[in-house]
Amino acid sequence: MSDAGSQEGVEAMTRTTLKDVAARVGVSAKTVSNVVNGTGWVTDELAARVREAISELGYRPNVAARQLRSGRSRMIALALPELSQPYFAELASELVRAAQERSITVLVHQTDGRADIERRISDGIDAPVMDGLIMSPLALGAKDLDTRIDPTPLVLLGEHIGDGGFAHVTVDNTAAAATATEHLLSLGCRRIAAIGAQTTGPNETAVLRLAGYRMALEAAGIEYDDRLVFEVDEFHRADGAAAARRILESGAEPDAVFAFNDLLALGAMHVLITGGVRVPDDIAVIGFDDIEESRYSTPALSSISPDTPALARLAIDLIYEGPPTPGIHTVGFTVAHRASTKGPTE
Amino acid sequence: MSDAGSQEGVEAMTRTTLKDVAARVGVSAKTVSNVVNGTGWVTDELAARVREAISELGYRPNVAARQLRSGRSRMIALALPELSQPYFAELASELVRAAQERSITVLVHQTDGRADIERRISDGIDAPVMDGLIMSPLALGAKDLDTRIDPTPLVLLGEHIGDGGFAHVTVDNTAAAATATEHLLSLGCRRIAAIGAQTTGPNETAVLRLAGYRMALEAAGIEYDDRLVFEVDEFHRADGAAAARRILESGAEPDAVFAFNDLLALGAMHVLITGGVRVPDDIAVIGFDDIEESRYSTPALSSISPDTPALARLAIDLIYEGPPTPGIHTVGFTVAHRASTKGPTE
Repeated sequence: MSDAGSQEGVEAMTRTTLKDVAARVGVSAKTVSNVVNGTGWVTDELAARVREAISELGYRPNVAARQLRSGRSRMIALALPELSQPYFAELASELVRAAQERSITVLVHQTDGRADIERRISDGIDAPVMDGLIMSPLALGAKDLDTRIDPTPLVLLGEHIGDGGFAHVTVDNTAAAATATEHLLSLGCRRIAAIGAQTTGPNETAVLRLAGYRMALEAAGIEYDDRLVFEVDEFHRADGAAAARRILESGAEPDAVFAFNDLLALGAMHVLITGGVRVPDDIAVIGFDDIEESRYSTPALSSISPDTPALARLAIDLIYEGPPTPGIHTVGFTVAHRASTKGPTE
Repeated sequence: MSDAGSQEGVEAMTRTTLKDVAARVGVSAKTVSNVVNGTGWVTDELAARVREAISELGYRPNVAARQLRSGRSRMIALALPELSQPYFAELASELVRAAQERSITVLVHQTDGRADIERRISDGIDAPVMDGLIMSPLALGAKDLDTRIDPTPLVLLGEHIGDGGFAHVTVDNTAAAATATEHLLSLGCRRIAAIGAQTTGPNETAVLRLAGYRMALEAAGIEYDDRLVFEVDEFHRADGAAAARRILESGAEPDAVFAFNDLLALGAMHVLITGGVRVPDDIAVIGFDDIEESRYSTPALSSISPDTPALARLAIDLIYEGPPTPGIHTVGFTVAHRASTKGPTE
């Protein structure tokens, strides 16, 4: 590994430059640069000739050189547990768009919540030099991240894992969960089931949302009843469906369900309706995340709607406006009130 | 740009090597390598000391050097139009997992179907050297890709854009669409509406699926009726919902709908049910893609289920087993028969 420097030197000396391409075509270096970067105005015919010369000479635009000049690669990495979870997919989409508006390229990683993969990404292994890393870790905690070997600015998404001196961007999960519960209380619901509690695993989200649920019940003078709290392994549709089956079998007879994310709510609603329960007349249902799917389910699903565009912009700002300020940076949320909670008092 | 080589040379001469870290901690280079790569077995205490030394000395694992030795970066790029479309999100998830099984890192790009972004990615601008690019282009055609300046192996996903000598991995869209239509015919449906035709834009998918629909009708001796064919701008839930409103207003009175993807089907089903139509008793509905959401809608949505895991593996194989063989490489599909087409004859 120690001889890499000299090998790179050899490569550099024989590297075709932009000027070589310009000389071959008989145009300015600026014109070649315009073709490569899609900037300026070049006729199709001339662009084709430049591309042909680039291909013949084996020229590769030198990202590293541009970076040395600007001090910025204009690339950031985004690491999320699962792209097939709609909330993460929609978040990734927002982040890529917010970055594109500033000519920043986002490279997305999926970690599957695996410690080894999260570690490699946070250490910058296998990746080119980036301006920053935006990460939603599942397996790693603050202690693990304290010892990361990559100095790239890091912004954490979602849950507050310890106080490790990192910048976190998130909604206030406790306040938002309390708001969801208050929404059901305001409709006259009194036996509100919670789907999404977790006693194992590192899921801080579940802990914070359960705390918000309890807080709202207490404020309304309703005693917390753990027979109305249903645990899940993960936050997927299948877990919500399984929890709803337990609700139907338990005889708990809730008049409402607060599911800790929309997938849990959608899975639960499917089982409830298929089992003859009327939503919202018998049981009102509210979720969390406001994924697009919730607007098209039957009935459409009420949900806590975090300000995801603001979250995306804030995460990028934190990277580019100097070292990310440690601490919790919260974004707002609203209640999207839809047919699944139109009742029982309306 | 031509002086980049010498600057890189300077950087290389002062670069901390793995051996420096090993010397500082008093362990072998192999042990440091194990800590960096998460391989082998190292005690937590020793790993912490190695990490501390790495951090102090500013060592950065040299990806370029590893690549020079192996001739492979073990990184591929994946470029998809929209991560917030569940089919693309689930496909990205499958591809990342299939790659991880082979210790390959996938960096995901979102193009938004923009020609400039697709061009930059296919030209390898702004990205490190990759072993290959897997791309689902929307804006670029075969002619554009013929002139790309990056020699990285390219595998196209989805639609057959021209015969540009590229490798394409896809389901047989025409055969699959015919199968969806035959499924509805086998249930006794005769007035089958199609949602998803497109007369503008480069969407080859819509053209191939419409051809399959026509083919199946003709084979069953049913005349093609363009009043039953509903165009859409995009393949999103909102387009399916808008098409369903037109169906209800048109007086076309179909007994079934074949939507060209699941999002169109789910958007349409929401409007039909909200409008008092019973699915499947009045109108049976089938989609295409078999996204997870279709298993949890009410009623659950029948769909064409492409073999996405096979598609993911095949795309990666094509990159690593020599230059990708040009031509269409198809993967299989099945019909996922669910409640939305249980009837009208059952």
